[in-house]
Amino acid sequence: MKFSLLNTDKNSKARAGVLETDHGSIHTPIFMPVGTAGTVKAVHQRELKEDIKAEIILGNTYHLFLRPGLDVLQQAGGLHKFNGWDRPILTDSGGYQIFSLANQRKLSEEGATFKSHIDGSKHFFSPESAMDIQRIIGADIIMAFDECTPYPCEKRYAENSMDLTHRWLKRCITRFNETEGLYGHQQALFPIIQGSVYKDLRIRSAEFVVEQNCVGNAIGGLSVGEPAEEMYEMTEIVTNILPKEKPRYLMGVGTPANILECIALGIDMFDCVMPTRNARHGLLFTENGVINIRNEKWKNDFSPIDPNGATFADLQYSKAYLRHLTICNEILAAQIASIHNLGFYLWLVKEARKKIIAGEFNEWKNEMVKKLNTRL
Amino acid sequence: MKFSLLNTDKNSKARAGVLETDHGSIHTPIFMPVGTAGTVKAVHQRELKEDIKAEIILGNTYHLFLRPGLDVLQQAGGLHKFNGWDRPILTDSGGYQIFSLANQRKLSEEGATFKSHIDGSKHFFSPESAMDIQRIIGADIIMAFDECTPYPCEKRYAENSMDLTHRWLKRCITRFNETEGLYGHQQALFPIIQGSVYKDLRIRSAEFVVEQNCVGNAIGGLSVGEPAEEMYEMTEIVTNILPKEKPRYLMGVGTPANILECIALGIDMFDCVMPTRNARHGLLFTENGVINIRNEKWKNDFSPIDPNGATFADLQYSKAYLRHLTICNEILAAQIASIHNLGFYLWLVKEARKKIIAGEFNEWKNEMVKKLNTRL
Repeated sequence: MKFSLLNTDKNSKARAGVLETDHGSIHTPIFMPVGTAGTVKAVHQRELKEDIKAEIILGNTYHLFLRPGLDVLQQAGGLHKFNGWDRPILTDSGGYQIFSLANQRKLSEEGATFKSHIDGSKHFFSPESAMDIQRIIGADIIMAFDECTPYPCEKRYAENSMDLTHRWLKRCITRFNETEGLYGHQQALFPIIQGSVYKDLRIRSAEFVVEQNCVGNAIGGLSVGEPAEEMYEMTEIVTNILPKEKPRYLMGVGTPANILECIALGIDMFDCVMPTRNARHGLLFTENGVINIRNEKWKNDFSPIDPNGATFADLQYSKAYLRHLTICNEILAAQIASIHNLGFYLWLVKEARKKIIAGEFNEWKNEMVKKLNTRL
Repeated sequence: MKFSLLNTDKNSKARAGVLETDHGSIHTPIFMPVGTAGTVKAVHQRELKEDIKAEIILGNTYHLFLRPGLDVLQQAGGLHKFNGWDRPILTDSGGYQIFSLANQRKLSEEGATFKSHIDGSKHFFSPESAMDIQRIIGADIIMAFDECTPYPCEKRYAENSMDLTHRWLKRCITRFNETEGLYGHQQALFPIIQGSVYKDLRIRSAEFVVEQNCVGNAIGGLSVGEPAEEMYEMTEIVTNILPKEKPRYLMGVGTPANILECIALGIDMFDCVMPTRNARHGLLFTENGVINIRNEKWKNDFSPIDPNGATFADLQYSKAYLRHLTICNEILAAQIASIHNLGFYLWLVKEARKKIIAGEFNEWKNEMVKKLNTRL
């Protein structure tokens, strides 16, 4: 896996690059739609490629482990074959879901036991099994097994948790190096920096992670409820330490404005459920702000959903029609809004990339951020 | 609106024709996907056209009247403009939903009062208002306001109901002739034959309806729980009376086998919620029988959903993947299965049409019907 840095913005730390994988190239900065259980909710793979123009999607190890299960995924020949997505995939390690979704979780030095939120069945994940499972799922980029601390989090807890995450990282790397991908394509392991909102912990964690010399690096434990300013501060502390020649992934971020601000801080990769989850609640992100399509004001607005939108859905359907579908709980509402929001997120990062290459990113970002949070 | 009969099968009463409307031609026999609230559930309009190859869709007057309401539909310029479907549309009169869905319905000579199943609001539909409402919705084919009798139904009730439907039909025709379409395209009114499962009533109703000399004719009150043999018997009695030069629409039918049998009896047009509703429950219709995709046997079947299928979804996704999505209640499961089932229904009637034109319909139909009901 090869990362090439093409341009760096003069007035910010924004970077434009290319990450090459065996399933194709990823043009950074990039947003990665979340495909929890092997599907980006309410969106066909064909639409992801041709309309949304996604270059890489996520899968969630916790969900995929429970359903369809490793036997099915391995027999299918990995997740790419199973879901028919032939571009890059990234999987998280399952850690985040164990702590946010599973029941009766119990942490030890060895790993984490938990009960499935679906059927209560009991399972155990360790750094080693997280690697083995992600070998079976077969994503191009796989993530280290970590504990994602909640917000707020006492410093003592954050520090102990970070140290555990570091010890787990060592075990992940050992297991990763002892094993090979199952399906003939290369996999890369990204370690995760923790440390909650404590500067000194973030610095220690970043330095520890950098020493491991992995192909790319990730920042976890942000976008978990802390104020945006703290997120930006932690991100900046970390990107100041991370090597320039490797891709940087900020996990679980965020709103369109969050993404632009963090691109300015030197982040290359993002994922978030927001565009799809909010779509299912009738919230649309646009260049000019956020639309709550359930609002009465759209009832007789027969203009296109987004005249400047990047996808067919933006032009084909009107706001009034989408409002009607949303109020009637029609499945098509989720489909249209998901395509719109993902199309917008992918447009936004592509536009950011153009501006970085043109040397106009920071000014453009400052103008955009003002508009993006407006309530339309 | 012009109907041309091209071919009639030698060994059955099956017919191939073309019905020309201001929104395009309909090649009969045809299946019309049901777009209840202005959307065929879980399917984009683009997919309906390009993948499923639907030529006409239905709208339900009862649903559209309640949501989005007539003010929105009229301001939009009718349903075609509202939902972006520029091919033909047919609307029912609302009668069926009033009797199957609404609360506290009360029938009188004048019409029907009912309470909305959504918010309990009270409404009144008459033959006249059903015409006025369908003028506002603006479908190419609109239906007379009738009472659809349940099954079983006592003969005295069926006869009184039929007589009421006939008196209502006269009022529908009067109102229809006194008014004009609102959006510059032609609308045709189809009357509905009732009479439950009583031969003499069906004959009387067919003869009464034929006398009205409308552009096309419809058969209602079937596929409401009666045995298939009774449905076929009533259909045949009626098609023996209906004029050959006008299109015949059998409302609410049915399974793929039902459709082929009724094509053989001289029916030209069908609609049914079955392909989309069953899709949402994981039931797939194929040339070789019915698949319950939730079944354990598909867990590791990585073959395409339907190797002979008519749509991209049939080839792009495997049975194992669709099973996984269905079990996880993923929206994409409904999307894929709906495209598959509708694509299959449209393929089936198109294939029937080819066989009629080639003079091979009846033999093919008899072979197909044996396979279609198989449980795979």
